[in-house]
Amino acid sequence: MKDVLDQGLASIPGLESCGAHLGFKYKKKDMGLIYFPDGAEVAGVFTQNLVQAHPVKFCQAQLEAASRFKVIAVNSGNANACNGPDGWQALKTCQACLCDCLEVKAEEFLMASTGVIGESFDVSPLLAKCQSLCDQLGRTSSDDFAQAILTTDTCTKQLAYQFDGYRIAGVAKGSGMIHPNMGTMLAFIATDADLNQAQLGKLLYQVTQKTFNRITVDGDSSTNDSAFLAATGQAGPVDLDQFAQDLEVVMRELAQMIVRDGEGATKFVTVRVESAQDEAQALAVAKSVATSNLVKTALYGEDANWGRVLAAAGYAEGLPVDPDRMSISFQSLAGAITPYQDGQAQVMDEDLAKRILHEDEVLIQLNLGLGQAQVDVWTCDFSHDYIKINAEYRS
Amino acid sequence: MKDVLDQGLASIPGLESCGAHLGFKYKKKDMGLIYFPDGAEVAGVFTQNLVQAHPVKFCQAQLEAASRFKVIAVNSGNANACNGPDGWQALKTCQACLCDCLEVKAEEFLMASTGVIGESFDVSPLLAKCQSLCDQLGRTSSDDFAQAILTTDTCTKQLAYQFDGYRIAGVAKGSGMIHPNMGTMLAFIATDADLNQAQLGKLLYQVTQKTFNRITVDGDSSTNDSAFLAATGQAGPVDLDQFAQDLEVVMRELAQMIVRDGEGATKFVTVRVESAQDEAQALAVAKSVATSNLVKTALYGEDANWGRVLAAAGYAEGLPVDPDRMSISFQSLAGAITPYQDGQAQVMDEDLAKRILHEDEVLIQLNLGLGQAQVDVWTCDFSHDYIKINAEYRS
Repeated sequence: MKDVLDQGLASIPGLESCGAHLGFKYKKKDMGLIYFPDGAEVAGVFTQNLVQAHPVKFCQAQLEAASRFKVIAVNSGNANACNGPDGWQALKTCQACLCDCLEVKAEEFLMASTGVIGESFDVSPLLAKCQSLCDQLGRTSSDDFAQAILTTDTCTKQLAYQFDGYRIAGVAKGSGMIHPNMGTMLAFIATDADLNQAQLGKLLYQVTQKTFNRITVDGDSSTNDSAFLAATGQAGPVDLDQFAQDLEVVMRELAQMIVRDGEGATKFVTVRVESAQDEAQALAVAKSVATSNLVKTALYGEDANWGRVLAAAGYAEGLPVDPDRMSISFQSLAGAITPYQDGQAQVMDEDLAKRILHEDEVLIQLNLGLGQAQVDVWTCDFSHDYIKINAEYRS
Repeated sequence: MKDVLDQGLASIPGLESCGAHLGFKYKKKDMGLIYFPDGAEVAGVFTQNLVQAHPVKFCQAQLEAASRFKVIAVNSGNANACNGPDGWQALKTCQACLCDCLEVKAEEFLMASTGVIGESFDVSPLLAKCQSLCDQLGRTSSDDFAQAILTTDTCTKQLAYQFDGYRIAGVAKGSGMIHPNMGTMLAFIATDADLNQAQLGKLLYQVTQKTFNRITVDGDSSTNDSAFLAATGQAGPVDLDQFAQDLEVVMRELAQMIVRDGEGATKFVTVRVESAQDEAQALAVAKSVATSNLVKTALYGEDANWGRVLAAAGYAEGLPVDPDRMSISFQSLAGAITPYQDGQAQVMDEDLAKRILHEDEVLIQLNLGLGQAQVDVWTCDFSHDYIKINAEYRS
């Protein structure tokens, strides 16, 4: 049971947020703040890419040293990645400036960045407008914050629910360089439940495996992926198992919002692998299919090309699959077809196949015929616009 | 030292070839034969995809059972993959028909197929025209054969050289679903050197690791990848080390021809990883960069986006890289730039960068600063036409 709340992150008691245009980007909002006046327990998960942005390294150290924080600052327009000592200095300048304005200690500060990699991060726009940014806190819903963290995204991604006894709200951004290997892109999730950093860290890690780590847009893992889970504590103690389930609802929805807004995507696709020997095998096969450029272009072409699905399953790493035991189905609001069953090609109604794949949401189902494990991975199709966006955008 | 021969495969004494339109495809040539009147020692390497086409499984068994062969038949237009017992029957029918026409034993016959996966393979066109196909043998250069095995390829891929004491010639096909994990696509290499199957098998495997297994177009591994190396023996015994070197010249050139004709490709790109700890690390990093959709779209956009190169190096599997020790250069006939050196972004002349990437052939050089190993991997850019070709083509 859950009720929808309409203030986004700001629905969480003990949390304020804001977002504004400072000048890192030409025109759009480019910096946002999440502020906990009384502090919050915070945990984070970060990219496993060995090339990590300065804020990723910074937050890992901060979270290691403390459990309660008052500020999470986020800028878009510059990833502050691969900027050497200057990038580190830029981050420290942001920290000093914002902590000063908000009268917060340096150890209570976290920061995330997203945008172009390797471009010098000139922080003078923040120095000039720090006070006016901070003055926005608490005056609006979290719309401004959700807007301020976008890059190639075409829409904001946020939600807030009242569950039984506590609230959970989240904001995410991400559209390209999406193949998370931890949390994804940027995600900020908050609750008023009373949980400590250790509990939050465990929950965030576990639920990330089933949500953010099961989406892909283009197979490229980012240098800046960061997901944070903060708890203000005002709703009191909670049942951990129930909270984990509710958190999964929130994080799965945020993850799927990212895929729906995948660069150039015209379709939202669930790749479901069933009857695998174990979950690792199901996941490996599902990811292999979900990242195959040939499968993704066939989906764009609305072609029920099960041969490409089978080929991608065949080169998945891990436990071996057996093509003679596999079945493949395509399903959508327009119907369902199974062109390959128990290792045999079936006569396929091409008109029906076309109608099924013409829908915006498609399910590809692979039954491996080997065991009991099942996994869903979410992906999108691969269109002309992906090429256009990424041939022209420097990230 | 090598001299160019102009008859392709047919330059090899003891080898005849042909190609014709039988009717597997609408109009273009779709079946070719390589024929050794006196037999030849033959070895093969095949896709490591667990989903294997019928001819792949067939050839593995044939090569296991015998070392000398008289016929390699190849059809395009149908991959004869995932066709169940009917696919196996279709292959056996081709074998019976061709062996009968050519008066060759069933155990002297090999066959490869390429085209659509999972589409029923109707062999009646061969039954109708088998004799007229066989009558073409030896009457032309290998052009007809090279044409007969193409699918989405825009050009034939063949070469023939006179080395010191022997000849080596080869024909290949491939354009999409190119991310070989063994030999690639289809390749047929022949020599008049006197080598037995065991020697040929070892040579083919070793040289494949450095040539066909170092190219990528789209990261998708095929169900039909097959490479054959045949020796007619007429030139007598050879020095094995020298032969391996010459074979590598031939196979590297064939591999690069495939990348140059990559689906939608406008650029031929060498990704060179230097100063790696070992060759496995160099290869993992080079492949990660060479398969990154974001790197490939940036190349299409002629954008020296070294941040994407660095990010792709950062998520390569295997030994860890250290971004602080890395350097990245772009090079072409128009010049060279090093926008990232020893872990530091450098001021980049954007006009020069644009001119460098405007060329048809580009070298991306990554120095890892960790050791002595070096590897080249060949790839192409990722253009609108890749999406167009693969949204519309069923393979």
